[in-house]
Amino acid sequence: MTGHDVARPGGVGWVALVGGGPGAADLITVRGRDLLRRADVVVVDRLAPRELLADLGPEVEIVDAAKGPHGHNLSQDEINSLLVERALRGLRVVRLKGGDPFLFGRGGEEALACAAVGVPCEVVPGVTSAVAVPALAGIPVTHRGITQDLAVVSGHVDPSHPGSTSNWDALAAGPGTVVVLMGVAALPEISRELVKRGRPATTPVAVIQDGASSQQRVVTGTLADIAVAAEAAGVTSPAVIVIGEVVALREELETYRIPD
Amino acid sequence: MTGHDVARPGGVGWVALVGGGPGAADLITVRGRDLLRRADVVVVDRLAPRELLADLGPEVEIVDAAKGPHGHNLSQDEINSLLVERALRGLRVVRLKGGDPFLFGRGGEEALACAAVGVPCEVVPGVTSAVAVPALAGIPVTHRGITQDLAVVSGHVDPSHPGSTSNWDALAAGPGTVVVLMGVAALPEISRELVKRGRPATTPVAVIQDGASSQQRVVTGTLADIAVAAEAAGVTSPAVIVIGEVVALREELETYRIPD
Repeated sequence: MTGHDVARPGGVGWVALVGGGPGAADLITVRGRDLLRRADVVVVDRLAPRELLADLGPEVEIVDAAKGPHGHNLSQDEINSLLVERALRGLRVVRLKGGDPFLFGRGGEEALACAAVGVPCEVVPGVTSAVAVPALAGIPVTHRGITQDLAVVSGHVDPSHPGSTSNWDALAAGPGTVVVLMGVAALPEISRELVKRGRPATTPVAVIQDGASSQQRVVTGTLADIAVAAEAAGVTSPAVIVIGEVVALREELETYRIPD
Repeated sequence: MTGHDVARPGGVGWVALVGGGPGAADLITVRGRDLLRRADVVVVDRLAPRELLADLGPEVEIVDAAKGPHGHNLSQDEINSLLVERALRGLRVVRLKGGDPFLFGRGGEEALACAAVGVPCEVVPGVTSAVAVPALAGIPVTHRGITQDLAVVSGHVDPSHPGSTSNWDALAAGPGTVVVLMGVAALPEISRELVKRGRPATTPVAVIQDGASSQQRVVTGTLADIAVAAEAAGVTSPAVIVIGEVVALREELETYRIPD
């Protein structure tokens, strides 16, 4: 038995679903960092800003959801049970995620699991990689005179697969900027299908690997050639794909990190 | 002449385009807050988290872009000139925005203005209201089994207007969740056009006024009746409109703010 098995005075604890942002430790919100400092237990995802864990006290239980007890990812049900069980034991639980908890973060499922058993749950929105990773690579996802709308989709299921729930016809016609998360493996199908469904083959595309980190790599091209270029460059996950005319702004728009 | 007219040693200063998040003071990023504390000049938007200004020292120049010298909003050109002029004078300038600087924030234009004259510029991504305001009202914009894609559009120009650059046919068919910012005035046209172009009239809709604040108000309905309901409730700007089946999750998904 460890100290974590001692219930807090006052009964039930709480769960905070904290968006950790795109990866850099200082792109978490002030609220998220404050709750993290109060946690007894932190359940952390692979893409959460792990540098933040170094600031936690030795008494804080850290559960790595990407490395469960038997070396495999914890399932969503296992994570839900863990959050609820620790909170019911009176502990303060932070679920630390990459990006935002409610945009591909499955935070809705965790909040429902808490609500179902009466565990108090707070959601702390985070900076989503879908907007921040392009920004940090010099690409605004909207820009006056170019486009004022954005789609964010998962590329986890490729567009030619019957299990794809996205309407790729609408995406080909639709929002000026399309950001695809988890799409590196399906990049050949995504770019081919968008062209087949009407998006010009000349549309600029950027693939940003390890965005918001010092390892960031950016490969650019068009819908016609980006899949070949990304493969030639050996791009791997995690990467954010940006499709649309805004990608061309990168050539003029320089940003840099102000020294501390 | 004020202290602000004294150039910093070392020549050129810098500009940081800081996303202030959806409105609550503690939903700014740690990076954003740190740069704010180093600023000589802060140029602030109407929807930025103004509570943060109270923490600034008396020597910091605050320019309210929503209340320019003659009581009117500063134009984008005037803002660009101001940022660049102050930085060239050696000052550290924070441009504090609501939400994210590069998603409807016009940060791209400001970064280009800096790049054009060689002023160092950093972009600090922020929590976008498009995702955070629904989240804080109990609506995850994506949810497994419901939808895995999101469109974010401006409702500033209504869909029936020839100046609308959004493809409303694609939005009607397209991403499961559509979030409209700046759309209160055009809500009757937006809901009517989406139905006319194929989105079911029964699609749930939420209109969230003053999200991420203690004044938050939420009005829900369907595409068929939301415009009437919002008008009856007297909803005014700023408000975020969420359209899609995820809105129905609000009934089961409870979150609350953990006490300090």
